[in-house]
Amino acid sequence: MITGKNFIGNSRSGKGDTTYKTFNPQLNTENNFSFVEATEDEIDEAVRLATVASIEFGAMSGVEKAGFLNAIADEILDLDELLIKTYCSETGLPEGRAIGERGRTIGQLRAFAALVKEGSWVEASIDTAIPDRTPVPKPDLRKMLIPLGPVVVFGASNFPLAYSTAGGDTAAAFAAGCPVIVKSHPMHAGTGELVASAIVKAIQKTNMPNGVFSNLNSSGIEVGSALVKHPGVKAVGFTGSIGGGRALFDLASQRKEPIPVFAEMGSVNPVVILPDALHKRGADLAKTYAGSITLGTGQFCTNPGLLLGIKSGALTDFINKLSDEIIKIEPTCMLHPNIIGAYEHKKDKALSQAGLQVMADKKAPNVQANYARQTVTTVEGKTFLQNTALHQEVFGPYSIVVQCEDVDQLEEIIRNLEGQLTGTIIAEENELAGHQKIVSALQNRVGRLIYNGVPTGVEVCPSMQHGGPYPASTDSRFTAVGIHSIKRWVRPISYQDWPDNLLPNALKNSNPLGISRLVNNEQTKNNV
Amino acid sequence: MITGKNFIGNSRSGKGDTTYKTFNPQLNTENNFSFVEATEDEIDEAVRLATVASIEFGAMSGVEKAGFLNAIADEILDLDELLIKTYCSETGLPEGRAIGERGRTIGQLRAFAALVKEGSWVEASIDTAIPDRTPVPKPDLRKMLIPLGPVVVFGASNFPLAYSTAGGDTAAAFAAGCPVIVKSHPMHAGTGELVASAIVKAIQKTNMPNGVFSNLNSSGIEVGSALVKHPGVKAVGFTGSIGGGRALFDLASQRKEPIPVFAEMGSVNPVVILPDALHKRGADLAKTYAGSITLGTGQFCTNPGLLLGIKSGALTDFINKLSDEIIKIEPTCMLHPNIIGAYEHKKDKALSQAGLQVMADKKAPNVQANYARQTVTTVEGKTFLQNTALHQEVFGPYSIVVQCEDVDQLEEIIRNLEGQLTGTIIAEENELAGHQKIVSALQNRVGRLIYNGVPTGVEVCPSMQHGGPYPASTDSRFTAVGIHSIKRWVRPISYQDWPDNLLPNALKNSNPLGISRLVNNEQTKNNV
Repeated sequence: MITGKNFIGNSRSGKGDTTYKTFNPQLNTENNFSFVEATEDEIDEAVRLATVASIEFGAMSGVEKAGFLNAIADEILDLDELLIKTYCSETGLPEGRAIGERGRTIGQLRAFAALVKEGSWVEASIDTAIPDRTPVPKPDLRKMLIPLGPVVVFGASNFPLAYSTAGGDTAAAFAAGCPVIVKSHPMHAGTGELVASAIVKAIQKTNMPNGVFSNLNSSGIEVGSALVKHPGVKAVGFTGSIGGGRALFDLASQRKEPIPVFAEMGSVNPVVILPDALHKRGADLAKTYAGSITLGTGQFCTNPGLLLGIKSGALTDFINKLSDEIIKIEPTCMLHPNIIGAYEHKKDKALSQAGLQVMADKKAPNVQANYARQTVTTVEGKTFLQNTALHQEVFGPYSIVVQCEDVDQLEEIIRNLEGQLTGTIIAEENELAGHQKIVSALQNRVGRLIYNGVPTGVEVCPSMQHGGPYPASTDSRFTAVGIHSIKRWVRPISYQDWPDNLLPNALKNSNPLGISRLVNNEQTKNNV
Repeated sequence: MITGKNFIGNSRSGKGDTTYKTFNPQLNTENNFSFVEATEDEIDEAVRLATVASIEFGAMSGVEKAGFLNAIADEILDLDELLIKTYCSETGLPEGRAIGERGRTIGQLRAFAALVKEGSWVEASIDTAIPDRTPVPKPDLRKMLIPLGPVVVFGASNFPLAYSTAGGDTAAAFAAGCPVIVKSHPMHAGTGELVASAIVKAIQKTNMPNGVFSNLNSSGIEVGSALVKHPGVKAVGFTGSIGGGRALFDLASQRKEPIPVFAEMGSVNPVVILPDALHKRGADLAKTYAGSITLGTGQFCTNPGLLLGIKSGALTDFINKLSDEIIKIEPTCMLHPNIIGAYEHKKDKALSQAGLQVMADKKAPNVQANYARQTVTTVEGKTFLQNTALHQEVFGPYSIVVQCEDVDQLEEIIRNLEGQLTGTIIAEENELAGHQKIVSALQNRVGRLIYNGVPTGVEVCPSMQHGGPYPASTDSRFTAVGIHSIKRWVRPISYQDWPDNLLPNALKNSNPLGISRLVNNEQTKNNV
């Protein structure tokens, strides 16, 4: 049931006067429900409840947390058709995408459940005492990861399920033992409220403390700012624009007690196409990339917005073919009038730069409101190098092909790019081996290197790194995707000479959890 | 040989006009050598060399980096008497401490050498492809840690060897594959130059690229600020005051590309003494703590500056005994007139607070210049709670004993403390079990919990956490001590569908390094 209210802990609450509605971009009309913005009092109460709950929740066993995470997954599935229909009505995305994203969300929740149930993720480390060591005895030291405390998660416009209310950030924080306060994304507040209700049901069914979760509505920046500045909040997760993420990072850094912000932000995901591969597979590549550029109406953070090649007849053919292919693809709907507005605005800015040539800018006769025109442009390497306006992300189905003079210029361009989530190299295998300077330069700028593929499609597995040098993310040392994303929300603590029976189970001599631990420098599941 | 010049890469350089001298606090006189402040040009050149060197150095094998680290250790030992004498002349610390700290420094370098030689620290993770997975094939993904790039390390006043030129931060950064630019601490610039010369010799002997290391002199804040703001610098390590660390953190956060700063800063290291333990062992505890408070003239970041007990006759006896014991200890020399000046200033500020009672403030007849008066004060719990000026660190041999009304007030005080490096509980075992709320509150505020010990003495081992909630450090998720401190200077990178023969050795199917890896969710040293 959608009520338009916030969840402050387990209770629905709508004390404010400001309301807003979500929008159906397919019908080009507002949806019915009104959502009530959270008030200052509601924000304070959510943080207060989270702070109190953090003690009990932070000490929960992995089995208990796994039960909670799996219950969330079950309750989300139980929302069934209502969730899928609401999702589609608030995003304009097709049902297949909604079902796929729900599957990913469920998968993430269950993956974190398995991780904490197994338990070794706490990186338990034990160095036993050497009482007769000279000149001073060696104490007994034991270390493990513990939760940071209440975490604020900002819903993402482009992932209403997988990176919003019960998405990757929330699942990782719950797994870590951190209460979560979600700042719901206003474009899909109904979807958010439904998922929030599923989390609250799971809390009640698995007896988690009230305050482990709150869901706050907001259509502006005030609620988010207040949360990030709140002394009770200990970390922040965000997926969105560079401007939004940087603003939160700045607020968090300026606090009396600075807190970590993991913001996954902008990326144009450069794709380097080397000559032999272009020569052999140009036409196929054009077709593949037309698909990748337009996938999800270009609304993926891994969208390939920049293709780099070396000037040649084959590159000209590729650009023409890519343009033809992208024109063939039927335009699709963007998430919201504001999103397509920003797309058109940023594209217009790019198109107004000197030296840029428009190769395709689909103007289909039947394009409806909120359906994006797919665009391919091209520019000389020298022009691109000199004009960083051309380096900026145009969020949507847009890509620029840069025609470099030679390999040196290509390498120079890579070295001058901002940080990126991904970098792709399309090459024959001998060709890749012969261009290790290109690989090295690209590696320095990205979080994930891809060979002969497309950057769209982010596999959820331990070996995935999703986060790169700034501004791809605010801290390249962490990932937003995969089980290792739990490390954003935890810190190590050492126990010195602590009585065995009072240690957390992860650190007791008898290893009651049966986890893998570093004991006197050896990784083992044995007792001490 | 001490020349007073900087090392810009392997070359001695002293282009500037500004010079300064170090000070012998035992003799209360300046030392002979003049040190030349680094100029803007020298700073730029150091960063330029580091940036170029970072590509080659970042790709070095663990064996090569281990050879380099061990060579640094050998060269430092080779400095022999000259290093020890210079150290003592610039710090006022006794020869035994100099030799002990050199031992720790050598031990750290060799521990990191062993870590990178073994190689598993890169956290290699492999998820192999499933080409026939539906609806989409699963790609091959492999992940490992790579260096961030040039790191700036600020020398610490209180650890001229173990946390300065070739100290823990530098050793960890080298092990990670990051070039290091040291901002030498002005109080021990001669010691710094000697150690820098040892590093440069090691670079030349083991054929490391020029630029892997530079050592910059500076007596003010300009050189450090310029380094932290320099676009080529990718991370910062600092040990020192809250004011200094926070200033660097702010500079780094305000950059166009923000960079991580790990600053290990202030801490009063609260010690909770529970009643039964106090009753049984009060006199012994007083003696032990008089020793811990005055160790190294109180110039350790883990110095116990705050003792918390519950009002009783036993606590009064303890305070009196502690005061007697601390008066018995001969005063010792502080590191520099500026350090003792700051000590006296902060102590005077503390002593001027209403409700504070001075129990001991050693005024020995023979106290020389730069020898610190050891001081014990006491205050009621209520007064302490209300006046956060009393919570501030007084860096030196000073401690305040807080007399709490009851356990609830004790817990409230702990909850209101700022973040700390350590928290100690002195208790009988039954007593500890009965006070888990105290433990929980303390755990929330510290990086290391100690039972029945003293916080001074920081064991260098994998299970050590040295770093706690702000302001103990700027990021509680990392440690400044122990092999895991390498994680401050690295980030993960993923390779998707990369040809096996072009992968880094750590990720190749055949596991040529023989390291432990996570392969399809199983930790193993086997081939793929």
